[in-house]
Amino acid sequence: MKEISGGVTAPEGFFATGVACGIKKDGKKDLAIVCSEDVAAAAGVFTTNLVKGHSLQVTQEHISNGYATAIIINSGNANACVGEQGYKDAKEMAEIAARLLDTQPENILIGSTGVIGKRLDMDAIRSGIEKAIAEMTPDGGHEAQEAIMTTDTIPKEIAIEFQLQEETVRIGAMAKGSGMIHPNMATMIGIITSDVNISHKMLDKALKDVVQRTFNRVSVDGDTSVCDMVIALANGIAGNGGIIAEDDDYKKFKDALEYVCTYLARLIAKDGEGATKLVEVIAEGASSQEDAYKIVCAIAKSPLVKTAIFGEDANWGRIITAAGYSGARFDPDKVDIYISDLMVCRNGAALDFDEDRAKEILSKNEVKIKVRLNEGNFSDRMWTCDFSYDYVRINGSYRT
Amino acid sequence: MKEISGGVTAPEGFFATGVACGIKKDGKKDLAIVCSEDVAAAAGVFTTNLVKGHSLQVTQEHISNGYATAIIINSGNANACVGEQGYKDAKEMAEIAARLLDTQPENILIGSTGVIGKRLDMDAIRSGIEKAIAEMTPDGGHEAQEAIMTTDTIPKEIAIEFQLQEETVRIGAMAKGSGMIHPNMATMIGIITSDVNISHKMLDKALKDVVQRTFNRVSVDGDTSVCDMVIALANGIAGNGGIIAEDDDYKKFKDALEYVCTYLARLIAKDGEGATKLVEVIAEGASSQEDAYKIVCAIAKSPLVKTAIFGEDANWGRIITAAGYSGARFDPDKVDIYISDLMVCRNGAALDFDEDRAKEILSKNEVKIKVRLNEGNFSDRMWTCDFSYDYVRINGSYRT
Repeated sequence: MKEISGGVTAPEGFFATGVACGIKKDGKKDLAIVCSEDVAAAAGVFTTNLVKGHSLQVTQEHISNGYATAIIINSGNANACVGEQGYKDAKEMAEIAARLLDTQPENILIGSTGVIGKRLDMDAIRSGIEKAIAEMTPDGGHEAQEAIMTTDTIPKEIAIEFQLQEETVRIGAMAKGSGMIHPNMATMIGIITSDVNISHKMLDKALKDVVQRTFNRVSVDGDTSVCDMVIALANGIAGNGGIIAEDDDYKKFKDALEYVCTYLARLIAKDGEGATKLVEVIAEGASSQEDAYKIVCAIAKSPLVKTAIFGEDANWGRIITAAGYSGARFDPDKVDIYISDLMVCRNGAALDFDEDRAKEILSKNEVKIKVRLNEGNFSDRMWTCDFSYDYVRINGSYRT
Repeated sequence: MKEISGGVTAPEGFFATGVACGIKKDGKKDLAIVCSEDVAAAAGVFTTNLVKGHSLQVTQEHISNGYATAIIINSGNANACVGEQGYKDAKEMAEIAARLLDTQPENILIGSTGVIGKRLDMDAIRSGIEKAIAEMTPDGGHEAQEAIMTTDTIPKEIAIEFQLQEETVRIGAMAKGSGMIHPNMATMIGIITSDVNISHKMLDKALKDVVQRTFNRVSVDGDTSVCDMVIALANGIAGNGGIIAEDDDYKKFKDALEYVCTYLARLIAKDGEGATKLVEVIAEGASSQEDAYKIVCAIAKSPLVKTAIFGEDANWGRIITAAGYSGARFDPDKVDIYISDLMVCRNGAALDFDEDRAKEILSKNEVKIKVRLNEGNFSDRMWTCDFSYDYVRINGSYRT
């Protein structure tokens, strides 16, 4: 497995680009297309928020048959909470693209990210889609990635190639996400492309499994948006023997997918709004998978833990406190806590650790928090970031 | 019902004071006593955190028979996560006080709030308890209140008097709490005194009921500490016919208790670490009590909602988003949202509201957020505060 350039257009048979159509007021790119030469097997994972953006609803409908040709994503406007017109607008976007690409509207997926409660400027969108389709190229992955950024400060794309039997195959991916965005409703979107030949059912299975352990293990502020989606398209052009069961090829594909998604998930946490540090939270030795998950979740979401890390304070009391209210069952008198490799708490009680060493560890860009419960064999992991003045600045700013 | 002065010593037969014994390095008061002339009916509500402070554990044991004489509270050290010695130290505190007050150690309750993972300085504590017991007076409520403050910036005490049949009776109360404190583990402690004659069972029932709707409806940062407790002592000296059932007198007592606890709960939210505004979150028209609770909880805990209010931004999209991920069931297309009396969202869709009016409302010290679900008849309410730069500053600071 090796990393290659090209992002979502690194796999064979994908075209992409990003254009500026005028939704973002600053003239930055705001409309992306990622398009497969042939109809591709398609799978998606969507927000669990009860409130759903209109574009996301259309995508959920269109992807339900397991196939898609292209995805159009606009940034700068979430197309959410504007009533029935929002749904009609997303449908029209699919129709325009389908006509130009000579396919059915059901083969087009739509993503929107940005301001909520504001109608899309459909004149801008219409000409944007035409322009994007006219300009898309087999090496336009990076431009597409640019066009989906909102408050992101780090571009988030990756591509890898690996072998399946005799064939060289590729996975490309891009993502956006950096907390909930000005003014909100617009967190993560991930697009994964591949030239692997895999059935849509196996693609769906692999994607759901991998997202669970990667994108679903990132917490910037504990809020989940109404536009979150991760979409995978696999067009089969690499010509490997099709993956239709959980065989060795499936395992290799899934490992590669996990590599790509882990890379992007960590980048999203690292680029969390106002973040100065990437924090990996690990729970080990839990008596159930659910308990391990509850503990990493509570720690990764705790504003007190996150401000302490921003302040480079080895405040493990807040860590054990968060574990204690997480809802997980464990014996507090058996808990050990490490900050990176420094043990700060043993059997639930304070250790007389070296504060200078702790300070040195916490001054780094990446910090690991490990809670060992000594109860059983289950573990989990989550990525988050620290909580800084800039988080408040970014999220306290006016929409106007 | 009228407000009177005196705090926890306003009811007949209570003595209190606060002294500086050297736990806080700045020489401020750090040890409080509240003591009843006679053994009082006692009830308590305690943190649900799995991790519990050692002093809190001793208090839970001692209050289990339903009676107590006095409570000793130290600030500056949580007496938590220090191993078995922490429990022994809390036991010794009760023994010292019991000897000086000529009662049983089981009649003494202990509260500790402050730094976690550090042994109590028992020499300081021993002389502090002696000094406090020697100096306590029938009007020392305010001094006791001072001694339990940590990062609190507003003193939190109240007393009221009201009639039960022919008798004038009183309830006094004090509280501390302002988020989780430097370094943590030390959030809210509430002490309620009364001269009402009420059985410990009815006191317990009233307290649990009222706490549910007052102190349990405050969220500063969503973290619950290991030292949280609310204790009520009622010594019966007012001589009213004893309350032993849910009669009219019980109802009057409970209403009075709720008045007192509501007052303190709002003060805690208003004095949240770094807070500039008190925020009341209301859910109406939910299809179940649990749904209403989930919604107010999610909104009150959302860092995105809280930073928007700090920024005086009428960002209702974040409010509907939080409701959407709360786990409550509702139809997003039926949701109305108000910011104070300004409707900003109807039937789940944006309204073209007056931004200047919104700005004016949000510039006030108190802001109300109301979500009307139009599903059923259940409602709930929670108090919180905004999320400011100062929250990050206070909680990011070093323990050392």
